[in-house]
Amino acid sequence: MKIAHHSPEVQSYFTALLERLGEVNDLRSAADLLGWDQTTYMPPGGAAARARQLATLQRLAHEKFIAPAIGHLLDKLEKVVEELPPDDDAAALVRVTRRDYERLQRIPSAFTAQITTHIADSYEAWAQARPANDFARLAPYLEKTLALSHAFADFFPGYTHVADPLINLSDYGMTVATVQPLLRELRTHLQPIVKAISAQPAIDDRCLTQAFPEKAQWDFGVQIIQQFGYDFQRGRQDKTHHPFMTKFSLNDVRITTRFSEAYLAEGLFSTLHEAGHALYEMGINPAFERTPLADGASAGVHESQSRLWENQVGRSLAFWQHYYPQLQATFPEQLGKIDLATFYRAINVVRPSLIRTDADEVTYNLHIIIRFELELALLEGKLAVRDLPAAWDELYDTTLGVSASDYRDGVLQDVHWFSGLIGGAFQGYTLGNIMAAQFYAKALQTHPTIPAEIADGHFATLHQWLRTNIYQHGNKFTTADLVQRVTGTPLTLQPYLHYLHNKYGAIYNLALS
Amino acid sequence: MKIAHHSPEVQSYFTALLERLGEVNDLRSAADLLGWDQTTYMPPGGAAARARQLATLQRLAHEKFIAPAIGHLLDKLEKVVEELPPDDDAAALVRVTRRDYERLQRIPSAFTAQITTHIADSYEAWAQARPANDFARLAPYLEKTLALSHAFADFFPGYTHVADPLINLSDYGMTVATVQPLLRELRTHLQPIVKAISAQPAIDDRCLTQAFPEKAQWDFGVQIIQQFGYDFQRGRQDKTHHPFMTKFSLNDVRITTRFSEAYLAEGLFSTLHEAGHALYEMGINPAFERTPLADGASAGVHESQSRLWENQVGRSLAFWQHYYPQLQATFPEQLGKIDLATFYRAINVVRPSLIRTDADEVTYNLHIIIRFELELALLEGKLAVRDLPAAWDELYDTTLGVSASDYRDGVLQDVHWFSGLIGGAFQGYTLGNIMAAQFYAKALQTHPTIPAEIADGHFATLHQWLRTNIYQHGNKFTTADLVQRVTGTPLTLQPYLHYLHNKYGAIYNLALS
Repeated sequence: MKIAHHSPEVQSYFTALLERLGEVNDLRSAADLLGWDQTTYMPPGGAAARARQLATLQRLAHEKFIAPAIGHLLDKLEKVVEELPPDDDAAALVRVTRRDYERLQRIPSAFTAQITTHIADSYEAWAQARPANDFARLAPYLEKTLALSHAFADFFPGYTHVADPLINLSDYGMTVATVQPLLRELRTHLQPIVKAISAQPAIDDRCLTQAFPEKAQWDFGVQIIQQFGYDFQRGRQDKTHHPFMTKFSLNDVRITTRFSEAYLAEGLFSTLHEAGHALYEMGINPAFERTPLADGASAGVHESQSRLWENQVGRSLAFWQHYYPQLQATFPEQLGKIDLATFYRAINVVRPSLIRTDADEVTYNLHIIIRFELELALLEGKLAVRDLPAAWDELYDTTLGVSASDYRDGVLQDVHWFSGLIGGAFQGYTLGNIMAAQFYAKALQTHPTIPAEIADGHFATLHQWLRTNIYQHGNKFTTADLVQRVTGTPLTLQPYLHYLHNKYGAIYNLALS
Repeated sequence: MKIAHHSPEVQSYFTALLERLGEVNDLRSAADLLGWDQTTYMPPGGAAARARQLATLQRLAHEKFIAPAIGHLLDKLEKVVEELPPDDDAAALVRVTRRDYERLQRIPSAFTAQITTHIADSYEAWAQARPANDFARLAPYLEKTLALSHAFADFFPGYTHVADPLINLSDYGMTVATVQPLLRELRTHLQPIVKAISAQPAIDDRCLTQAFPEKAQWDFGVQIIQQFGYDFQRGRQDKTHHPFMTKFSLNDVRITTRFSEAYLAEGLFSTLHEAGHALYEMGINPAFERTPLADGASAGVHESQSRLWENQVGRSLAFWQHYYPQLQATFPEQLGKIDLATFYRAINVVRPSLIRTDADEVTYNLHIIIRFELELALLEGKLAVRDLPAAWDELYDTTLGVSASDYRDGVLQDVHWFSGLIGGAFQGYTLGNIMAAQFYAKALQTHPTIPAEIADGHFATLHQWLRTNIYQHGNKFTTADLVQRVTGTPLTLQPYLHYLHNKYGAIYNLALS
């Protein structure tokens, strides 16, 4: 990156800033690799030392980032970038760096180290206690996580809601005041859809629950994501218990997946989902490498890209018009006699269930809204950790009409509260679903041929539109600015509701609105 | 670790030292993981960023280690540990840390950066020029490496031989004055053995060059090293082009291997060799974790452990009395009709050859001695880089009676001079072979039942003896001190010669002495 300024002094400030940010980025990337290894290949014995190593790297990255020298360089450069257009890259870098700098300045590095160590312990405990269905063992970890979450928020006095600083961590610029009404409004729309669908004859999706050998599933998914544009020269896929995307540079963007040999949809859509995250990172402007701009704009925008590829593309009829004959050829015994319409309905079945990650497009957001409300209740002190399982079960009963027989499939199902702070962990998923529809609607409006191209197995027009409008910008714009810039309107529920009504109205023979 | 001292002030110095050393250790371990990933799983696109990340971690580890604060803590603690017995752990930590501190202090970080960059360039050039058989292209890199090696040595004025500071890097305490006579004496013993064997009928080892499916080789090797005591809860095995052992903590000690489906001995003995390195690290006193004591004592001592498990154990008749029936059951078509005696002779065939890494136990050291003499001649200015290929070929002719038809299998075969300094790169291999025999002889003297146990597939007595006498001490003693302590005598050729004479005398029906 360069700064458009003729003064050698200003150039040297900018170069010095890049050098310091690069060092921080190297430390963070190393920490990310340690984290990737931890969940993919690390032997169990490595856990204790790995937690210490991660803590050291994160502490050093933190110390280096909040060094006064960076503050001084920002002071010098801010005066210069005021004269530049707001979407100038250098101006964006200074702006985003200042934002992160001010935030991290407030968090003592001892506190960061404390969080890192606690989270590592907490994750290990969860990994052992969840299979044992042992909430009691995990309650003290959650208590401490909650205390640390409060302590974190308190470094940002002046917040409106205690969750706001935590939400800011993953979805910068969002607040309880903006997110909660949106989620609650969405709930009022989703519940009637779920109710109407539940009154219809159930879809038969037994074709998905046959024996599907893993190797064939792996190869089928890999072939698709390569056609999406995922580049195995710049990434790889491994297996983990919980699939994720991670990157160590813009040319090393990895995904993980998991398979069930008894359920086809799990591995397939997990692969498409994580590939969507990866396409975003792989598409960031290479000039942003090693800077804070070389990241997604927010958890929500990131999720919009994984969801767009997984759902708007990967669960569409057009997509399977192309791929279903190939899938049948891959699994002739299992799917040879199942027609496309049956398969398409099976992968889009709407059925209230216990597990978030298995949920369909319609009920998924209700899982998120439950968690979001529980996070707020915990943070507001209205809910004690010991009462969390009961509150969880009650909300599942009233919102989705289902109840878990154990903690494994209930309150312990997600890793989030055991691998990060409480507050801000979940809203990004639903914000992502909403934005995916809003972005995709805009892409279709600009290029109405996209569905026809997808039906031919071509994704280049869509991928290029996403690269041009979203991916290349990385973390340059805030979520709100990006949505406005790309779609011409602020974040809105309408395209998402329109998408759900159309798609599920057709699938379930309902007039939804 | 604790220090046996009643003053809280001294305790606090010691704790502060441990904390600083722990931070350095975390950075180095992270760098090691980045290196492991680079050769196992990293996609090609990741290379450029990975080089930057490694450089950053190594620079920070260096800066942190030579911080004046560590010097001050050592000053304070040295007065205290003088009163402690020399084999006290805390005393050893202070002693070893001082040694490393003084060495690293002398090397300016700009010089380290220069070496790092040159080595990276040099390695890239070698990787391209070796297949092209292009020595001329690499000569300028070697010239520069030689100049840097001299410059390195000059940071340690007062050396007796210019190679001494370089040898110290991998085999602390060894010098040209101690190593060269030993290697030359060994040569005078090896050459008659090779000559006598060459006059005997050649051993038929074609049983090893059949088709051996990789998966079966992998499983067979894994089963053996688990019986050695390699703990897959505290390690793992992956595939790389060049096998190695690496560790990220004492509870995460990994090995890599490679297989040839056309040659059984390659993967099998590579696995046993690397497992030997790993058993050493896995056996280090857990109290040494995160300190400079949590390492092998030297390249030579490390190699003694890989060689002991690979050769003294893994190429012994007793070992195959137990495992050969299992190997035959694994590969019935290939080995079902080959008897144990034939197989045992095949894996111990002695045959002068061009490639060091393929060499047998007897000729292997002659490859090392050639390289060691060439390194010294280059450093002494008696040999110019341009004359190196001719000198190489001449030594191979006079020492082993073989000559390479190209540079690929001659002077360019090893990565060492293109991935590190010249001087000190090779002697550890032969020191390791010598020590392996000396240690093993002592173990057998103490526990004469070891060969019988091995013939039953039991390794616990040997493993425990190695743990007690060698492994647990880690880097606490110098090579010379450790050998004296374990065997009661200084480093000596006699046990090694005795081993070779007995073993190969029996195999080749010769009276060797």
